[in-house]
Amino acid sequence: MTEKMTVTPWEVKGEIDYYKLIKEFGTEPLTDELIARLKRHTKDLHLLLRRKMFFSHRDFGWILDEYEKDNKFYLYTGRGPSGHTHLGHLIPWFLTKWLQDKFKAKLYFQLTDDEKFLFNPKLSIEDTQKFAYENTLDIIALGFDQKRTFVFSDINYAKTLYKEALKVAKKLTFSTTKAVFGFTSESNVGQIFFTSMQSVPCFLESIKAGKNVPCLIPLAIDQDPHFRITRDIAPKLGYYKPAIIHSKFLPGLGKGGKMSASEPDTCIFTTDSQEQIDRKISNAFTGGAATIKEQKEKGGNPDICSVYQYYYFVFEPDDKKVKELKEKCKAGKIMCGECKKELASRIKKFMAEHQKKREQAKKVIDKFILSD
Amino acid sequence: MTEKMTVTPWEVKGEIDYYKLIKEFGTEPLTDELIARLKRHTKDLHLLLRRKMFFSHRDFGWILDEYEKDNKFYLYTGRGPSGHTHLGHLIPWFLTKWLQDKFKAKLYFQLTDDEKFLFNPKLSIEDTQKFAYENTLDIIALGFDQKRTFVFSDINYAKTLYKEALKVAKKLTFSTTKAVFGFTSESNVGQIFFTSMQSVPCFLESIKAGKNVPCLIPLAIDQDPHFRITRDIAPKLGYYKPAIIHSKFLPGLGKGGKMSASEPDTCIFTTDSQEQIDRKISNAFTGGAATIKEQKEKGGNPDICSVYQYYYFVFEPDDKKVKELKEKCKAGKIMCGECKKELASRIKKFMAEHQKKREQAKKVIDKFILSD
Repeated sequence: MTEKMTVTPWEVKGEIDYYKLIKEFGTEPLTDELIARLKRHTKDLHLLLRRKMFFSHRDFGWILDEYEKDNKFYLYTGRGPSGHTHLGHLIPWFLTKWLQDKFKAKLYFQLTDDEKFLFNPKLSIEDTQKFAYENTLDIIALGFDQKRTFVFSDINYAKTLYKEALKVAKKLTFSTTKAVFGFTSESNVGQIFFTSMQSVPCFLESIKAGKNVPCLIPLAIDQDPHFRITRDIAPKLGYYKPAIIHSKFLPGLGKGGKMSASEPDTCIFTTDSQEQIDRKISNAFTGGAATIKEQKEKGGNPDICSVYQYYYFVFEPDDKKVKELKEKCKAGKIMCGECKKELASRIKKFMAEHQKKREQAKKVIDKFILSD
Repeated sequence: MTEKMTVTPWEVKGEIDYYKLIKEFGTEPLTDELIARLKRHTKDLHLLLRRKMFFSHRDFGWILDEYEKDNKFYLYTGRGPSGHTHLGHLIPWFLTKWLQDKFKAKLYFQLTDDEKFLFNPKLSIEDTQKFAYENTLDIIALGFDQKRTFVFSDINYAKTLYKEALKVAKKLTFSTTKAVFGFTSESNVGQIFFTSMQSVPCFLESIKAGKNVPCLIPLAIDQDPHFRITRDIAPKLGYYKPAIIHSKFLPGLGKGGKMSASEPDTCIFTTDSQEQIDRKISNAFTGGAATIKEQKEKGGNPDICSVYQYYYFVFEPDDKKVKELKEKCKAGKIMCGECKKELASRIKKFMAEHQKKREQAKKVIDKFILSD
């Protein structure tokens, strides 16, 4: 039996039907026309756009309208620091970095150490702040532009954020949060307040600049409900509604489901050793047949294969080669062992490089952090 | 018809029955024994204690137990900056200052600019922060010890407060705030969160000292519900429950009701001119008879007289003289005009002096403010 699809900021489970999500959330599909229009400005397209990992949006056309009128946008994305960063988290960050480079855009990167403390009974503030630090190293390692990137923890940056969050909070009733997030009388009062804090970066550049600046948020679709609220409230505070482009979830290495830190065996963390990566990839669920003989005869099924997804969404940027790989698999011309070995080698290479940059990030981390 | 008694942190109306309040709120009466025990340490007693303006408490005996074991307490009180300070606000501050002097106690003085913004549809953050500044001048003018007094606005001190408030919030459900404050689904999410911020100063000295320090809160009884919540949560966070001594409300200059900024004609602000004071006192409701002739024959009724209350609670510290005044009034030997004139003169003298100190406070305000 397939588990019912659940997508909230705190829980994603079941088989995800992304087209159903667009309908349920009331977003718009990211059309070929919009992507082509973006390409007129960027010249090329990131593979996450070419391959529709980003599939949905709110007001992305308006962001381009404004850009074409010389009203430049800034970027905002975030991370809930409940553990180490894994490959799934990097997906929206990769695109964010590409957008920053293409548009020379400022970026506010929010670490919701308050949220993860409030929603996870097992985590202390010390825990979420420790992970906020660790996650920041990953952000910096991706090569974001030091001059244009501002990383902050909600708790450490509360002097700035709380004041603005109050303005959102005053316009947001318990009733609305109940409808959007399913809160109950037994929800804690910090959870109920939290979406006010998550809203602030949507206006932060406007506050600092003293004039309205369009905001574009690249994020995984599960976080959309927060910004549905923010978009209702923004005009009441005199700000633009933030625009959003939504990504799908990178699947885990098991059968179905998104990559999730709660299942560490099917999840590749940026802190994993080369051996751990080898082991996890070798245990990955694939679309292979029961026997090698059968697979050679009937071919594999890349559509359900986690390994193929990793090539497709991250590790094989060449469109021609990824197509060839799919055909070879379906034709039974490549076996899972070989395919896994090659993927493990690419991931290990990426991680070795990433971990080196992560170490170097420790020396410059202060230059990225906002805390006053 | 007498209006029904309502006492919440945001509304006080009707005829107040203080003994009923003790029962409803579940506090203890401040007995003669406790006051006598306090006097063994302070040698004398402030008139607000002698005359039972402070009438109720929670764990005040425990505060003295700890003090006698050399475990000294600190003080915490506050102000909701929704307007200028009036005489009614000064009542708990007078006693707080006296306690600080007698016990050389540290004091945290909280200005809830967040609360007043969240609960008052007409006030902006700029408004509540302006009043927080104005109210701070009054605090300093009362002569609090600069070395031991730490004044902060919730918004400006959020970097410290928000982190600690989260720990309270995680243990507080909407259901509890609903039961204690009567919040509904239409309450805004900032209101629902707020009591977490008001709780923090109960632990602030323990946090700073790195060990548990007893906290004593002198305040008007309407604020008690916040601390009923804090007292439930404090032990779960490893802190002492804060102790409280509760004051009654200083009546307004009209017939019945507490002094309230929402009725400025019956309310003496610390920013009033000498002329305004004269006018307000001359219009005050008294216990005088319909005619001078009748009053000379039958006497006045000091028990219902607002003017007498001001002598009793603030402006006639001499116990013998206040008793004489009452007797003279009841015997028809003093008329309201004369009594008002004398009171106005005392208030004007106090205010002239206070306003001078208020001006001087502007130069030292930074030395009192916590903001990091």
